[in-house]
Amino acid sequence: MPVEASFEVACPVTQSDRERISLAHGEGARLTRKLIRNELLSILGNDFLRPLGDSAILPPIDGTLVMTTDSSVVSPLFFPGGDIGKLAVHSAVNDLAVCGAVPLYLSLALILEEGLEIATLRRIVHSVGAACQACGVQVVTGDTKVVPRGAVDKIFINTSGLGRLRPGVELGAHRVRPGDQILVNGVIGDHGLTILTTRNQFEMSGLTSDTAPLHDLVARLLDSGADVRFLRDPTRGGVAGVLYELLEHGAWEIHLDEAALPLSDAARGACELLGLEPWHIANEGKVVVVVGANDVDRALGALRQHPLGRQAARIGEVRAGTSGEVLVSGVLGFERVLDEPTGAPLPRIC
Amino acid sequence: MPVEASFEVACPVTQSDRERISLAHGEGARLTRKLIRNELLSILGNDFLRPLGDSAILPPIDGTLVMTTDSSVVSPLFFPGGDIGKLAVHSAVNDLAVCGAVPLYLSLALILEEGLEIATLRRIVHSVGAACQACGVQVVTGDTKVVPRGAVDKIFINTSGLGRLRPGVELGAHRVRPGDQILVNGVIGDHGLTILTTRNQFEMSGLTSDTAPLHDLVARLLDSGADVRFLRDPTRGGVAGVLYELLEHGAWEIHLDEAALPLSDAARGACELLGLEPWHIANEGKVVVVVGANDVDRALGALRQHPLGRQAARIGEVRAGTSGEVLVSGVLGFERVLDEPTGAPLPRIC
Repeated sequence: MPVEASFEVACPVTQSDRERISLAHGEGARLTRKLIRNELLSILGNDFLRPLGDSAILPPIDGTLVMTTDSSVVSPLFFPGGDIGKLAVHSAVNDLAVCGAVPLYLSLALILEEGLEIATLRRIVHSVGAACQACGVQVVTGDTKVVPRGAVDKIFINTSGLGRLRPGVELGAHRVRPGDQILVNGVIGDHGLTILTTRNQFEMSGLTSDTAPLHDLVARLLDSGADVRFLRDPTRGGVAGVLYELLEHGAWEIHLDEAALPLSDAARGACELLGLEPWHIANEGKVVVVVGANDVDRALGALRQHPLGRQAARIGEVRAGTSGEVLVSGVLGFERVLDEPTGAPLPRIC
Repeated sequence: MPVEASFEVACPVTQSDRERISLAHGEGARLTRKLIRNELLSILGNDFLRPLGDSAILPPIDGTLVMTTDSSVVSPLFFPGGDIGKLAVHSAVNDLAVCGAVPLYLSLALILEEGLEIATLRRIVHSVGAACQACGVQVVTGDTKVVPRGAVDKIFINTSGLGRLRPGVELGAHRVRPGDQILVNGVIGDHGLTILTTRNQFEMSGLTSDTAPLHDLVARLLDSGADVRFLRDPTRGGVAGVLYELLEHGAWEIHLDEAALPLSDAARGACELLGLEPWHIANEGKVVVVVGANDVDRALGALRQHPLGRQAARIGEVRAGTSGEVLVSGVLGFERVLDEPTGAPLPRIC
């Protein structure tokens, strides 16, 4: 697997690197405990996880709880800019962040294929640990299953997350009104295009996944006082998927400005070459923001002050209407209907 | 798959029963939303889940939080006494229960194989719904991924659970002392043997999985006032696995009484026929209880008043010692060392 070997995560290399996961590692007895102690607890250990009970006993959370879950099934496991471990942490953190929550705790459930190299598992767990540290969250409980060769492709990871809702925050499609403006925090499509080109071993220099944790950027945005109505991270289905889902909640149309969509040169080139619609491509470090019309500048200002929002842009607006369509105006001013992303499934993007 | 077809869960049969999961169902767009609305929300819907946000907004929980996670990868999906959906709910509920928590909320993350019959998914979701209702818990957030044929075997389910610790309860290996007595709430081995014989299509009448939610039984036990030190549900690794794990926490030996172990006739017969050690077999509706020596009768009395504890029994005790071994005295009084369950992995039991 040359693709997977070419993106390194710093971690110690030991003599056991050629060791592989066996079914006995999943039997729930000594080997399972050894695997958990050596490969998980040594990296992720904290006072909640260390007792290795059936559950984690956590302190009370003062305020409204927010809970989320996400399975990461990305292929390949390692790609420019990230890996399945980093993605698993970011996906839970971002699901909490876009609901207005401060992420606090994660669970980590691994499903391992018999024969997986323990060195590969170790690289992934190191990546989980580094991402947790960067996000200020802790893995407090876990589960490890091993299934026979062929019953799963290498490793799948579930992360469930628990957070505390930021006081006074109310976000949701029910708050959206005609006239609201639509923003994104930066260039679109890099994650999905990176996975696609890495998986197919296209030579396409310059593409790197945008996977990143959004909680700090969202905090900055909400603290700005801008009247933020709705937030969603455009992962599977891309920006178009988020907007069509939004349209199910009101008698609206959405009008987008093709020229306003931030795109990296690499993503623009890849989309043109492969005939893909950037609006459809998955992202892992982006957020679609719907904000009251009077607060566009305030919101953009807050986003652009953050490293993950330097290229934030207004890309369109919500209007009253009954077509239920997302329309894109191109460079010559003509509007076209943006297709819903149903025709070209790109599986295992996240 | 005749084995899977022979255990029915009541659910409506529609014309779409021959429909199958496609990659587009996992793309995060219209088909994903349709699948979630038609097959999940219609059965599991509640006020927390219905908004289909990235996360669930929950009311504050007054007291100490308990969080757990579990992946269900059982094969076959349907077996006498249960199915993967029921198991997924019980495993999270039981992990909370044996930590002394009242289970409240679950997340549900599905990983579906392209080509899975939607009718099969529907049966499983109905089973999840029925089990949640029986346990008094709600699925508040979810995730659905579809992976290409061969990347997963039909369906894997992750459930993470959130509960509230019962006030005044403190359980754990750190509370165990020499002289403490070991109880189980009923016959051992039925789940693991059912999976084993169903998977291999042995004709072995009378075996039915014991999968059951333990929260109510545990509540009864804790309310009895018995000095309960440690609880653990003996799933993978069986009773032996739990006891060897316990021995890592102190300078103890554990002495068991072979004749005291409750076994169904079917389980006894299957173990003899297959040469299996009942102490090693996985259970899904059983709990190992360690209780202070003076409180055995009180604890057994409380357990036996509950339908899931009618056959509760004292099976052994913790003694001071440094061998770190679990010893079993047989009918002639000789003691033998009980092996740790590491030699005969039975994968995908739960």
